[in-house]
Amino acid sequence: MRVEGSWRRTIEPAAHGDAVDVLDQARLPYEVKWLRLAELADVARAIRDMHVRGAPLIGVTAAYGVALALRADPGALDTACATLAATRPTAINLRWALDRMRRVVAPVPAASRAAVAMREAVAIADEDIAQCAAIGEHGVALLEAARRGDGPVRVLTHCNAGWLATVDWGTALAPIYKAHERGIPVHVWVDETRPRNQGMLTAWELAQHGVPHTVIADNAGGHLMQRGEVDLCLVGTDRTTRNGDVCNKIGTYLKALAARDCEVPFYAAVPSSSIDWTVGEPAEIPIEERAGDEVRFVAGFDGARIARVAAVPPGSAVANPAFDVTPRRLMTGLVTERGVAAASPEGLRALFPAP
Amino acid sequence: MRVEGSWRRTIEPAAHGDAVDVLDQARLPYEVKWLRLAELADVARAIRDMHVRGAPLIGVTAAYGVALALRADPGALDTACATLAATRPTAINLRWALDRMRRVVAPVPAASRAAVAMREAVAIADEDIAQCAAIGEHGVALLEAARRGDGPVRVLTHCNAGWLATVDWGTALAPIYKAHERGIPVHVWVDETRPRNQGMLTAWELAQHGVPHTVIADNAGGHLMQRGEVDLCLVGTDRTTRNGDVCNKIGTYLKALAARDCEVPFYAAVPSSSIDWTVGEPAEIPIEERAGDEVRFVAGFDGARIARVAAVPPGSAVANPAFDVTPRRLMTGLVTERGVAAASPEGLRALFPAP
Repeated sequence: MRVEGSWRRTIEPAAHGDAVDVLDQARLPYEVKWLRLAELADVARAIRDMHVRGAPLIGVTAAYGVALALRADPGALDTACATLAATRPTAINLRWALDRMRRVVAPVPAASRAAVAMREAVAIADEDIAQCAAIGEHGVALLEAARRGDGPVRVLTHCNAGWLATVDWGTALAPIYKAHERGIPVHVWVDETRPRNQGMLTAWELAQHGVPHTVIADNAGGHLMQRGEVDLCLVGTDRTTRNGDVCNKIGTYLKALAARDCEVPFYAAVPSSSIDWTVGEPAEIPIEERAGDEVRFVAGFDGARIARVAAVPPGSAVANPAFDVTPRRLMTGLVTERGVAAASPEGLRALFPAP
Repeated sequence: MRVEGSWRRTIEPAAHGDAVDVLDQARLPYEVKWLRLAELADVARAIRDMHVRGAPLIGVTAAYGVALALRADPGALDTACATLAATRPTAINLRWALDRMRRVVAPVPAASRAAVAMREAVAIADEDIAQCAAIGEHGVALLEAARRGDGPVRVLTHCNAGWLATVDWGTALAPIYKAHERGIPVHVWVDETRPRNQGMLTAWELAQHGVPHTVIADNAGGHLMQRGEVDLCLVGTDRTTRNGDVCNKIGTYLKALAARDCEVPFYAAVPSSSIDWTVGEPAEIPIEERAGDEVRFVAGFDGARIARVAAVPPGSAVANPAFDVTPRRLMTGLVTERGVAAASPEGLRALFPAP
């Protein structure tokens, strides 16, 4: 990934392993600031308040959080895992990363736990990059296949599943970066993604790499598909059932319905760390209800600083479910690091026979 | 309608017929201000810049605009109609009202044109109220039928098709007000309706009458329908084809798809003034592309005044189509002032044999 001209990861060990630095996503796209997280509480707060976000990055950040907690107290494994697991309920990568850290660290003597934990967190981060790069390779073929004529392939995406949501490359955006690097023209329709406007993160990310894109209200994508202006939809996932249903940012389901109605291919980019093999049906996934203030207020730049304005009249109630589930029947396929799977129990099992 | 405790219309003749007063919707819900329109140019600007909005109210306002123009210059009929027709392209009520004014006024001698025009504009306003009240009566039966158990009937609406969009009562909200007055418990899910946030107008309107409601992001409605939390969807229309397709605020199509997928009834409230008998197929309807700044900036209240913040990074392009068309196959029915029609050529013709 490229931030202000230099190549970095979204999360990097700092201060000789006593901390990690993360790009503060609560300030993007208005300010590029790095945030240093030194303690378990810092990490938990950063995840809960969405300074870091995106299912894969939440997992990696939690892994580093375990390592930092053990550096302070080698006996803190259970506390660290419980604290981090409670930050956000929907993204399964969080539980996946914590389970893996616990499995690796628990048998190790106290004296070497912190070092082993940090090594494992780095390994998870490295694997995340490799998975995303592989998703990019498999996805670029889909983009080429969807392209019509000489113009750019027109991709619609929802929320942010780019490198900001991972350690590098991104999931849904990885194929777009790969295509762009190879000279395949791409244009991205970027859903605003209310209430948290993660589309602004996607727009900013794409702009860093010079990828042409257009921001639209969340309401507009169906109309664009009706008009034949979308060749392919590509989104991320916060949790994928073993049967191929995709839980992603609220509103994904609506775009998948439009894609089906307009015969536009609809794919999710699914790193295996986002598959919940214990869950078969959508209703089993807990949907996070976030604070109503995310709907009441809109953040932006007022020319001098980040400001927020109240949009909803004070006397009105608000609701803020953060995710929805797109049933597998609406998915054209799932782009994993091992290839494109059919969105079905058999499809995922064929690529991941022994998860 | 009820504004700050008193009952008024959204548009009323003022200054002994030398002007009209309209409720300024560009300041709502943050400030209740009335705007006096005295000249043709005032009226055209008020429509174009959305100080008045909503297809039926646009038609009525244009009719008053013709009357005001003729008061200044009895020879200005053609100029007035051309100026007003150019303000906004999608709502057919505008053309309908101008055609009617021209038909009535053109044969009249210059000396009495202004008076005849003002009388006709008042008649159009009165008929709008009667149509909306009748839509309310027909619609309230649908709400009662959709109610499950003892709880409130849960209605989802998009944009604002309440009394703010008409002279009184509203179209989609009329059945809700009628039900509320009769003691039938109602709860309304109010779509935010980006980019112009007309959902805030709906929330404010409902609050004036004490109707329980909850504001949600435009992304949330599909999820609520999946969870069985919506009994019925009810929206307005800016133009209805003679075959029953409904052109309404951008994003309506996405909710209609979700309603179909979740087996939730989906109705549009259709005053006959919004039916375009000359148009058979959706592709024939011009879709207004509004200024990109409506997507770039979000308006709200900063505690002291109406402020706006920039949401989209400056280097990113934006697109802003203002309407989409929901095909008749997704409509359960059309609630007109003459009853509920099937969304089909035969359905509308049965109720309006000689439009």
